[in-house]
Amino acid sequence: MSAENAPVNAANPEVAPLQSSADAPAQEGAPAPAGPSKSELKKRAKEAEKAKKAAERAAREEEERKKREARESEDTAKQNYGKLPLHQSQERNGQKRLKFHELSKDSVGQRVVFRARLHNMRPQGKSRSGRRPTHTLQGVLVASKEGDEHQVSKQMLKYATLIPSEAIVLVEGVVKEAEVKSCTIQNYEIFTAVEVNELPFSIDDAARPESDFQRMETEDVQFARVALPTRLDNRVMDLRTPTNQAIFRIQSAVCQLFREHLNSEGFIEIHSPKLQGAATESGASVFKVKYFDREAFLAQSPQLAKQMAIAGDMERVYEIAPVFRAEDSNTHRHMTEFMGLDLEMAIEEHYHEAVDVLDNMLIHIFRGLQTKFKHEIETVKKQFPCEDFLFLEKTLRLPFKEGMKMLREAGATDAEGNPIGELDDMSTENEKLLGRLVREKYNTDYFILDKFPLAIRPFYTMPDPVDPTLSNSYDFFMRGEEILSGAQRIHDPTFLVERMKDVGIDPASMTGYLDAFKLGAPPHAGGGIGLERVVMLFLKLGNIRRASLFPRDPKRLAP
Amino acid sequence: MSAENAPVNAANPEVAPLQSSADAPAQEGAPAPAGPSKSELKKRAKEAEKAKKAAERAAREEEERKKREARESEDTAKQNYGKLPLHQSQERNGQKRLKFHELSKDSVGQRVVFRARLHNMRPQGKSRSGRRPTHTLQGVLVASKEGDEHQVSKQMLKYATLIPSEAIVLVEGVVKEAEVKSCTIQNYEIFTAVEVNELPFSIDDAARPESDFQRMETEDVQFARVALPTRLDNRVMDLRTPTNQAIFRIQSAVCQLFREHLNSEGFIEIHSPKLQGAATESGASVFKVKYFDREAFLAQSPQLAKQMAIAGDMERVYEIAPVFRAEDSNTHRHMTEFMGLDLEMAIEEHYHEAVDVLDNMLIHIFRGLQTKFKHEIETVKKQFPCEDFLFLEKTLRLPFKEGMKMLREAGATDAEGNPIGELDDMSTENEKLLGRLVREKYNTDYFILDKFPLAIRPFYTMPDPVDPTLSNSYDFFMRGEEILSGAQRIHDPTFLVERMKDVGIDPASMTGYLDAFKLGAPPHAGGGIGLERVVMLFLKLGNIRRASLFPRDPKRLAP
Repeated sequence: MSAENAPVNAANPEVAPLQSSADAPAQEGAPAPAGPSKSELKKRAKEAEKAKKAAERAAREEEERKKREARESEDTAKQNYGKLPLHQSQERNGQKRLKFHELSKDSVGQRVVFRARLHNMRPQGKSRSGRRPTHTLQGVLVASKEGDEHQVSKQMLKYATLIPSEAIVLVEGVVKEAEVKSCTIQNYEIFTAVEVNELPFSIDDAARPESDFQRMETEDVQFARVALPTRLDNRVMDLRTPTNQAIFRIQSAVCQLFREHLNSEGFIEIHSPKLQGAATESGASVFKVKYFDREAFLAQSPQLAKQMAIAGDMERVYEIAPVFRAEDSNTHRHMTEFMGLDLEMAIEEHYHEAVDVLDNMLIHIFRGLQTKFKHEIETVKKQFPCEDFLFLEKTLRLPFKEGMKMLREAGATDAEGNPIGELDDMSTENEKLLGRLVREKYNTDYFILDKFPLAIRPFYTMPDPVDPTLSNSYDFFMRGEEILSGAQRIHDPTFLVERMKDVGIDPASMTGYLDAFKLGAPPHAGGGIGLERVVMLFLKLGNIRRASLFPRDPKRLAP
Repeated sequence: MSAENAPVNAANPEVAPLQSSADAPAQEGAPAPAGPSKSELKKRAKEAEKAKKAAERAAREEEERKKREARESEDTAKQNYGKLPLHQSQERNGQKRLKFHELSKDSVGQRVVFRARLHNMRPQGKSRSGRRPTHTLQGVLVASKEGDEHQVSKQMLKYATLIPSEAIVLVEGVVKEAEVKSCTIQNYEIFTAVEVNELPFSIDDAARPESDFQRMETEDVQFARVALPTRLDNRVMDLRTPTNQAIFRIQSAVCQLFREHLNSEGFIEIHSPKLQGAATESGASVFKVKYFDREAFLAQSPQLAKQMAIAGDMERVYEIAPVFRAEDSNTHRHMTEFMGLDLEMAIEEHYHEAVDVLDNMLIHIFRGLQTKFKHEIETVKKQFPCEDFLFLEKTLRLPFKEGMKMLREAGATDAEGNPIGELDDMSTENEKLLGRLVREKYNTDYFILDKFPLAIRPFYTMPDPVDPTLSNSYDFFMRGEEILSGAQRIHDPTFLVERMKDVGIDPASMTGYLDAFKLGAPPHAGGGIGLERVVMLFLKLGNIRRASLFPRDPKRLAP
């Protein structure tokens, strides 16, 4: 409001004196009379003096009011908020920017600068939360009084209130109160660095546990449910929930722990090509690629490559890489592209040397997560509550036949409703049932099934030395679902050809595979883990897509 | 040789006495004559005694000969060599198997068991070397004498001599002599665990340096040269050379060091999908995939995904994953599939924060290799001699214009032979020349070019805040070849659309990319490194295929 628009005050001292002079009798048109009496003059002088004082007082008051109005309309906090120009790395002053997790009791009273994403508004409208991946920090703005060193104007308060959630702001302010979790920033400056458009859903809604929706049935509350496809369509938004920030820190940790253990066991990391000249293993579920003027295939696993590395005397190798499956499976646990954690190793006496390495590696992962990622696990539990993942000091290793016996005794049947045979394939349903039976009997969510029937394993699986219906192969389970499959492989090319013929594969179609063994490969074994399955089952997320940054399934190729 | 086949000896003592009794005159048919004279009888008795003794001696000799022959034919070392049955994990005794690198002075005199691949025969034919990835161990067999505790028969010597090179053997023997590098195993047992077929070339030939072939011009020596395509066709064999064992240990180390540094800088590892619903960046060089009833594309880089992770508040991310380029480039430094080491990070004040992270990370890699992988570097140098890789305490950061000025002053021209302009693209040849100029002037094989012209960078590159012809982008060089490219990215969706239109890209074709920024992405920068290029240039291997386990180029899709 500018001074020009100030309302006219009736007690205007500049006007008042003029009005009182208009009351003079000289204007009444009478002949020049005799002068007023002395007492009359005295009285008039007294009145004039009184009017003058009143006018002066009014003038002073008006002046102050004008000043105050000018001050208010001027916006004394103008320099403390606003929109920043586009960040083009204009300058580098080496200004220290606060990391939220660095806040401590020592920070109280310090003036700090930080970038944050604005979280939702508090109902009282006075405070805003700034969010960083794993922490949030409350900001409180109070309109400043006259004489306050830090100016917060009404205009500024309004600006800070109206910045949309999810905008990125640069804040400078003073830390108040103690402890990371209850720090606030008061009387800050706030600048919008990055604006946002309309949001598909709120972070609060995206982070709700199922129990919130159950409350709607008994309490007078309303919550918006964000469906999984909506989340995945807007994954960038979805990833900002504390749950997802924690899930992908845990996913990252699984790979670190995997490598940490295998490096200590003398393994080397390899990278094998995903573009293949021939379809390996089985041609049914492989993606075809147009490769210049011919056809290529996407690797379904690094199986051949890692075995060739062993034949090439690399002794112990692992690889973390995408694997591709062109299977039209639309389930909670299948994706067309997922991360394979693969390893292969030469063995000395027995394939159980590989089972030991795999087992110790998984235990290292479980222990590492439960000790170093407690905060993340607890964060995920807030949205996906579950019982802690149980594993034993010494892992349960159950022969396949023993597992089938437990299932039979529990009344499990095959797809046709018949009692299961001891060499049958194990259905997904029966795997889950076995997981429950094992948990009841042995108190573990993690165990190994060893000695699978030869007939239900790939042709390159080494048969058992005694029982020709069995094989030197194994699956590892978490919460009743398979996360790892592996075996001793046939390293003898003649025997490999024999086995190919047994199962109806033309050896001529796999000469590349056979050639590697003709040059002499040491006896070896290995296995492959699905990264997203480990994360999904450890955290009991219920759907593998929740454990994948940008999942791919037969229907989803974006974002 | 069995006793039944023993040749009949003329001096057979069991026969000899019979012959002498046949000489008796009683059998001559004459009437009973008078008895012989006493002296005659005495003489006869003497002769008979003599014959008896001779026969006895002959019998003793024959007996000894027979024993000796039996002993020899029996093969007293039979249990000490032979072919093992197929390894099917028959038993597990927990027998300790020697690792070659564990050998020390303390090992002398110890009886050890180990698996090894047989190396080439020594000319003297008495010793064989057993090879493990990084060490070899000489084995010496000496025919045993009678009474020796450990029996080495002629048959065994012959067997040990004739096992083909590259077969895998199990050996038990006694360690003789000191020091890892000069240990031998003597009087051992040897069993063939894995046999081999015909070999494409020998390991010795595959490991020859160029200097061996130069010797052929002046000396009377002949060596077989193994061409790169032959090696790659038989990569399993080629990988067994000490050079390749060292190269892939170094390749593995580069990734470990990359992660080690970035983990310490607060980065998270991500895994983004390689199957894309739309071609990103540019559609020209992208592989097409048949994805059920539609089309997909192989990611040319994780550019979009890592930027989306930043928009999803992951702050600092990296990824190690294959990237695919459908470019028909048949050069020493291009492959259709290679490993990308990518990172992206939110920045505070300036994109040089990202340059600092990238620079420190590369220095960490160079230092780590030169301190922890000396042995491997020296091994590679034996086949590929080169000067040590030079880098400075504080990395040289050269503005692009400055680099162009150095080139112009050195007389560099463009493809048409004209002097180069300061905003021209830099040709591969000129990059190499600049590398040489920088090495001469600054004594470094590693430097950064900063501030590339905007016109020669991708549309999503942030322009310089002052000079609109320049950009906030950079390339990193090793030995005059680019190994890393990066920039500050445009995080503002409106500006991004503007830039798309400037360079002729239809924003509608990239809505997925734009959507991520509409939800608000912090200012960010990053870069991508080619793993194989770093390895090739650090070791000066001359061809990128030598730094890839199973390389892929327009002509090669196998093995």
